[in-house]
Amino acid sequence: MAVRAAVAGASGYAGGEVLRLLLAHPEVEIGALTANTNAGQRLGALQPHLQPLADRVLQATTPEVLAGHDVVFLALPHGQSAAVAEQLGPDVLVVDMGADFRLKDAADWERFYGSPHAGTWPYGLPELPGGRAALEGSKRIAVPGCYPTAVSLALAPAYAAGLVEPEAVVVAASGTSGAGKALKPHLLGSEVMGNMTPYGVGGGHRHTPEMIQNLSAAAGERISVSFTPTLAPMPRGILATCSAKAKDGVTGDTVRAAYEKAYGDEPFVRLLPEGQWPATAAVYGSNAVQIQVAYDEAAGRVIVISAIDNLTKGTAGGAVQSMNIALGLDETTGLSTIGVAP
Amino acid sequence: MAVRAAVAGASGYAGGEVLRLLLAHPEVEIGALTANTNAGQRLGALQPHLQPLADRVLQATTPEVLAGHDVVFLALPHGQSAAVAEQLGPDVLVVDMGADFRLKDAADWERFYGSPHAGTWPYGLPELPGGRAALEGSKRIAVPGCYPTAVSLALAPAYAAGLVEPEAVVVAASGTSGAGKALKPHLLGSEVMGNMTPYGVGGGHRHTPEMIQNLSAAAGERISVSFTPTLAPMPRGILATCSAKAKDGVTGDTVRAAYEKAYGDEPFVRLLPEGQWPATAAVYGSNAVQIQVAYDEAAGRVIVISAIDNLTKGTAGGAVQSMNIALGLDETTGLSTIGVAP
Amino acid sequence: MAVRAAVAGASGYAGGEVLRLLLAHPEVEIGALTANTNAGQRLGALQPHLQPLADRVLQATTPEVLAGHDVVFLALPHGQSAAVAEQLGPDVLVVDMGADFRLKDAADWERFYGSPHAGTWPYGLPELPGGRAALEGSKRIAVPGCYPTAVSLALAPAYAAGLVEPEAVVVAASGTSGAGKALKPHLLGSEVMGNMTPYGVGGGHRHTPEMIQNLSAAAGERISVSFTPTLAPMPRGILATCSAKAKDGVTGDTVRAAYEKAYGDEPFVRLLPEGQWPATAAVYGSNAVQIQVAYDEAAGRVIVISAIDNLTKGTAGGAVQSMNIALGLDETTGLSTIGVAP
Amino acid sequence: MAVRAAVAGASGYAGGEVLRLLLAHPEVEIGALTANTNAGQRLGALQPHLQPLADRVLQATTPEVLAGHDVVFLALPHGQSAAVAEQLGPDVLVVDMGADFRLKDAADWERFYGSPHAGTWPYGLPELPGGRAALEGSKRIAVPGCYPTAVSLALAPAYAAGLVEPEAVVVAASGTSGAGKALKPHLLGSEVMGNMTPYGVGGGHRHTPEMIQNLSAAAGERISVSFTPTLAPMPRGILATCSAKAKDGVTGDTVRAAYEKAYGDEPFVRLLPEGQWPATAAVYGSNAVQIQVAYDEAAGRVIVISAIDNLTKGTAGGAVQSMNIALGLDETTGLSTIGVAP
Repeated sequence: MAVRAAVAGASGYAGGEVLRLLLAHPEVEIGALTANTNAGQRLGALQPHLQPLADRVLQATTPEVLAGHDVVFLALPHGQSAAVAEQLGPDVLVVDMGADFRLKDAADWERFYGSPHAGTWPYGLPELPGGRAALEGSKRIAVPGCYPTAVSLALAPAYAAGLVEPEAVVVAASGTSGAGKALKPHLLGSEVMGNMTPYGVGGGHRHTPEMIQNLSAAAGERISVSFTPTLAPMPRGILATCSAKAKDGVTGDTVRAAYEKAYGDEPFVRLLPEGQWPATAAVYGSNAVQIQVAYDEAAGRVIVISAIDNLTKGTAGGAVQSMNIALGLDETTGLSTIGVAP
Repeated sequence: MAVRAAVAGASGYAGGEVLRLLLAHPEVEIGALTANTNAGQRLGALQPHLQPLADRVLQATTPEVLAGHDVVFLALPHGQSAAVAEQLGPDVLVVDMGADFRLKDAADWERFYGSPHAGTWPYGLPELPGGRAALEGSKRIAVPGCYPTAVSLALAPAYAAGLVEPEAVVVAASGTSGAGKALKPHLLGSEVMGNMTPYGVGGGHRHTPEMIQNLSAAAGERISVSFTPTLAPMPRGILATCSAKAKDGVTGDTVRAAYEKAYGDEPFVRLLPEGQWPATAAVYGSNAVQIQVAYDEAAGRVIVISAIDNLTKGTAGGAVQSMNIALGLDETTGLSTIGVAP
Repeated sequence: MAVRAAVAGASGYAGGEVLRLLLAHPEVEIGALTANTNAGQRLGALQPHLQPLADRVLQATTPEVLAGHDVVFLALPHGQSAAVAEQLGPDVLVVDMGADFRLKDAADWERFYGSPHAGTWPYGLPELPGGRAALEGSKRIAVPGCYPTAVSLALAPAYAAGLVEPEAVVVAASGTSGAGKALKPHLLGSEVMGNMTPYGVGGGHRHTPEMIQNLSAAAGERISVSFTPTLAPMPRGILATCSAKAKDGVTGDTVRAAYEKAYGDEPFVRLLPEGQWPATAAVYGSNAVQIQVAYDEAAGRVIVISAIDNLTKGTAGGAVQSMNIALGLDETTGLSTIGVAP
Repeated sequence: MAVRAAVAGASGYAGGEVLRLLLAHPEVEIGALTANTNAGQRLGALQPHLQPLADRVLQATTPEVLAGHDVVFLALPHGQSAAVAEQLGPDVLVVDMGADFRLKDAADWERFYGSPHAGTWPYGLPELPGGRAALEGSKRIAVPGCYPTAVSLALAPAYAAGLVEPEAVVVAASGTSGAGKALKPHLLGSEVMGNMTPYGVGGGHRHTPEMIQNLSAAAGERISVSFTPTLAPMPRGILATCSAKAKDGVTGDTVRAAYEKAYGDEPFVRLLPEGQWPATAAVYGSNAVQIQVAYDEAAGRVIVISAIDNLTKGTAGGAVQSMNIALGLDETTGLSTIGVAP
């Protein structure tokens, strides 16, 4: 019997990506598609790449429309998910691709988002220690942010193995779809092509406390993260360059061994062979994570670099992966590690 | 029982794309992968997006290595396919993604390619009149060129319906992967980004006689094509803007009706709703063809615009589609009309 | 004594480009900078590439602010230029980079722009026959549209020399800055990168009657133009592929000779050596026009391809060039044919 | 009397850029242009953006050809500059845009470049402490590497003012022209568009010892630099994200004050107003350096971000600036802080 899935916020990038993946998911039947200002429009006019759904018409995001599904994916602006989830009731699997339920610390939430904390849901990053167990059978999933996905997968093994000092430095480049479809001048094509520029510098990006939460859990102690995101002239992809000071006795071999152990059995995370470096183009449109490690002896630092597709593993692919676990399906169903390149 | 497929020329873009599609094909098992100068290398170093095949090692392209497969895809330089096909024997399905067997007219071949004509194989464009019948049960398939795919699908219905005069004008923009992985200065990233430039202007492009062959067959008379290809700053995609003078009595409605009739039942070709225009991004990585028509009354011309992914429908997707037909599988097996966007 | 210039609409792309050029113009002193919704902001926040003007504050576009200048450049939405020009009086040189005064035929204007015709000013394309004479000493200049600049320079010599039939076919690719800074979904970076898509197909683009006006004047008879613009994934540049049926007796040599004669003495237009093709990257940021011609004997057509920077020669550079002529300065003052590449 | 300048290596990106700048330099007359494999070709075929020089023919790089100039710019592969400079004699100003004479420590040179150390020339980064004095009247100039230019200008003030600990972490994104015109598969347009990928990770990049040399000089103690370069999908530009642990008592205000003091009078370096961030597009084609600083209190780090054009300030613009100083010209002659945007 097919899993019936609705998508609230189907006209945006996260909504479009989850639909792209669900169309290829053998166990899922796509139900209601909703939007806010775009309700009433044909999906084909807004997401012309989803040809099988081109003639579907977007509905308003109401409890009635979303009722009667097994799974509801939420791709909504911050602060709207709690009310929708409550209306759906406790038996529907609600997968929130927004930020509302990611943080455990209410003070962190309020400081970074400026609104009351809605709560905390099981966190959809199965590759973290204890990650899968938290999702099995769950009816609520908080999908991680795109940057925290890339950064947590890059650094958690080093912290879990006690290889590095508790002060991480992260510089990440993201494709423009990470900023969504918002009509802002700096997101115009004329502005982003040929341009690299940072934003949220100095600790201000909202994904920072989420990284700290994940890495501190892996380390068993408080980790600080200096995080600088940059906007890169490409539609998709995150390349995260992460480093921390090596503890005494750490070598290139101990680092590599820790990552081989952490990810040797993971279906989506691949520690690349030595000499090969992560590339966002190689994971384009796929749920794969590419990771490579290096030990800079002269600088005394461990460097870990990860590449993901921000919309797939970083949002909608991670959402489907966690849904699979929650529903008891094979975790990889409907997902792949095959990128679209060149 | 699985179809066992080999790919000769697995390190290039066409070879990589056919592997990407075959990995998702439920009836195919991937066998030998061969290359020339790259033989001996891990595929993961050359095609890092094909993670499931990363540890496969490329072999030399020899009869022994290619023996024992049901299907062999050839992605070889011009002039090499005939010898390989002969060695494979008449019972193996050979799908040639190169140009060697596309043209019927030996004089055309010799004028444009400067070498002896190797012959003519069934032509892998099922959507042309009579296209499917030619492929059913065939053991040899000549996959069309990428530009001829886009242009023939755009104009064949207008010629088949007798709507336009026999002189077509085509200007097409192609992503850089259409030029392959050859190391040429004008293909460097520094040169192509931010740049549009034509090439092969004035009738010199090798795909011209192939377009003429297809359109003349559809029209039942000799069609001339003025073809100007341009290189666009994107990795994939062809946008073909095609036009011809309307015959007397033609209107926007008659044009639209002809295309609705031609493509109403086609699984991969979609005549877009009025007001929506083809976009290469919408077909990125998919086998879909987007088409839109217009009648310019003031200029007296019918304009037809098509968008394809040059590597998918324009090469490897078309190859798999034709393979499906030749093998008696459902034509759409392993293929989709879902693009990767944004 | 310096020429004192004001720019109305200094926060957009045309306004920014004219400021970039005026900063390098040895005879011009930059006066008032005005905007509408952006009035009150520092220019550095809106045009961060114009560092010498970073601390200038944008004023409202009022007659008082614009008074007291020798030249006023208008980069305003359609329909606003007439009122501003009238307030400035007849002694100020007004250079309108908008469309209001380009068309001679009021009916054409009303059909394409849907508003009353404001009049016709001397047309700022000096390279057209009689173009310079119309500008000398003028106090009003209508700067051509970007596409008409590229297309008229490409085809006017062929029509002036009587080489081709009166039905032209034009397909042009433009960088995204041609669409301005308007916040529209299809102009977002995520949408335009990796994408080629047409618009205004079938005769609907507003630049069509302007091309027809120019080419008809050159030909001495009515020329029809089938014009298809496409949006290319680059910030700047227009590549126009233009063709028409050759008249009897025309050869490649007669075509080349006509263009050598037309442009041999032009400072900004260069007929490239045979074998070299126009490239938008080669004219990036410059006032240069690259042109190449071909005669396709099999198709019986003359093909002319031109490349310009839509913001420079296509808008602000053309405006400065015409200003130079109107003021009696050397036409090339402050302008160059040196592109920024790669 | 004009300064007569020759360029050895005029067919590459550095050579093309220095010619672009020299064409606009009022005191320079361009003399011999030489190349190696491209000798005998028209410059227009190789550098089509340099229209005024299109008909110049490249000569072989010989002492005879380079004789008789006041200045010779060298854009040669590593290891060739010493021999050429010796032949030119001590009275000619030789500006080496390669690496041969940048490093003071012979052991560093040999470790990173694998060849004997050729010596050390005055270093062409005038904005460093003592930088101008070293260049005045000099007949030899070693132009800095592009990354060291961006990183040294970003971090030197913090080290000179004693604000940060001696362990710097740098992640920089570079446009593809930084890799030159070499025909390598990973530099093909199909590979770089849509892609971010690191290289030389873990301390292996040759620019690392040059950064350490500059920052250690500013600090008066040995600085370590963890440097990760990444290749970004754009032709030009470097965005360098640099950070180090703040010393006790440092605040956002002390950091800002140090940079205002360091760069308040610099013609090319601009500390941006608070709230505005460096962008490579804003310095495209210009000699400007944009810098912004932040203090991340939670992470205890000072973050400094700089943006340059790697070919202009990062190579040829820096070369011309240093030439101006060496020749006693105004330092800004022929250079600007006006970028080409959008």
